[in-house]
Amino acid sequence: MEKHNNGSGAGTLYVVGTGPGSVKHMTVHATEVLKKADIIIGYRTYLDLIPEFLENKEVVSSEMMKEVDRCRSALEKTIGGKNVALVSGGDPGIYAMAGLVYEMAKQMDADCSIEIIPGLAAINSCAARLGAPLMHDFAAVSLSDLLTPWEVIEKRLDAAASADFVTAIYNPKSKKRTTQIVRAQEIFLAHRSPETVVGIVTAATRENETIVVTTLGEMLEQQIGMQSTIIIGNSQTYSWNDLMVTPRGYSDKYSL
Amino acid sequence: MEKHNNGSGAGTLYVVGTGPGSVKHMTVHATEVLKKADIIIGYRTYLDLIPEFLENKEVVSSEMMKEVDRCRSALEKTIGGKNVALVSGGDPGIYAMAGLVYEMAKQMDADCSIEIIPGLAAINSCAARLGAPLMHDFAAVSLSDLLTPWEVIEKRLDAAASADFVTAIYNPKSKKRTTQIVRAQEIFLAHRSPETVVGIVTAATRENETIVVTTLGEMLEQQIGMQSTIIIGNSQTYSWNDLMVTPRGYSDKYSL
Repeated sequence: MEKHNNGSGAGTLYVVGTGPGSVKHMTVHATEVLKKADIIIGYRTYLDLIPEFLENKEVVSSEMMKEVDRCRSALEKTIGGKNVALVSGGDPGIYAMAGLVYEMAKQMDADCSIEIIPGLAAINSCAARLGAPLMHDFAAVSLSDLLTPWEVIEKRLDAAASADFVTAIYNPKSKKRTTQIVRAQEIFLAHRSPETVVGIVTAATRENETIVVTTLGEMLEQQIGMQSTIIIGNSQTYSWNDLMVTPRGYSDKYSL
Repeated sequence: MEKHNNGSGAGTLYVVGTGPGSVKHMTVHATEVLKKADIIIGYRTYLDLIPEFLENKEVVSSEMMKEVDRCRSALEKTIGGKNVALVSGGDPGIYAMAGLVYEMAKQMDADCSIEIIPGLAAINSCAARLGAPLMHDFAAVSLSDLLTPWEVIEKRLDAAASADFVTAIYNPKSKKRTTQIVRAQEIFLAHRSPETVVGIVTAATRENETIVVTTLGEMLEQQIGMQSTIIIGNSQTYSWNDLMVTPRGYSDKYSL
């Protein structure tokens, strides 16, 4: 590991993105960091996808341990002198573990190096599976109102819809949260045609992956769950061969 | 290469994201595709960063050839039976080559398989270098008005600013385009405090990388160029140890 912290004896905490799932979709750098780390810490679901990195390692996997406990444990072991890899699905820097790590490091006044190793987020991998939906300005909005007031989320949906952003919807629906996606559709329909192209990717690149290209008007007829990301096209997005393509411009300044 | 197209004799066109630059930050899958491809096509600047993949290959690099010509050439060679890797910096699926490939394939009615191999986009790599700015809803807006009317861009900046999106600014400034970033700052200042945290990353992960954490009020005093991405924090984003951290929620529903 290149970076060590001064004379404090602390190690480095690497917050490693594993992307959509398997090793194949991790960066070379992420695989190297996992190979060299003294300790690997992560949610069991993510660790189960990368068994090749867990042999002959101290592994702290957890089903029950909360995210906050996982981060604290990772920071404590790093301060104690170990090089620790804290594994995060997707990209730790996009709606994921990087923030909590820094929030806790600040609170603990942790004296250790922290490095974020980015990975493919849902927007990267889902966009690739759908064709080319993110060729123009886009917004990402999570419908989870656990930590964010619903009014703030509605305001963002309205802003994204009215300004013709391609919009990626994270956390669209769970068993308990079923009404938010219905409201999101209503907000978009107030600004965009029901024919607007919509893509729904569930479990991108995994065995149970499903990819659907549908429309804003009909999107709720599709299976949408915890592992789904929805991409709502802008006014220019079209579908072609069951794919979703957003042209790069609104002008005709370049011609094919 | 796994996927071949039916009985047409065509190969597969792989649109391969090389991320911020070196092989280290590519996915394992992307490196495998480059190794196996018959032909590698790309802009010289990107190919120069990955010399290890170019030996014993047919390589079509170009400084002058336009993007459209590069895509057409890649499609023609694929239709002719080769497996072609068209290299794109960053993520081909985010403001990059994937869209043009599909637009041209549609126009040419190209009968070949096309696969997008995602990579780390500027938002992924810049966020990682800045700390954790993208922990909450975000928007990406390009200030290039070559293919998009400036009114549309202004409307999006206003929408993103007013709805408190963390906002990534792509293409903030070039030698010829210098006024757009000034106007973008004005629009944000109409909605947010001049103390709002702003991060500027130039040439992420490369030798000439610079990382600056500043404020909305003072951002224009910094060096901003063609290789820069700017991330404007939301109202909750704070700076800590020269990093930029957006907390995950607006509520106090989880405590550290």
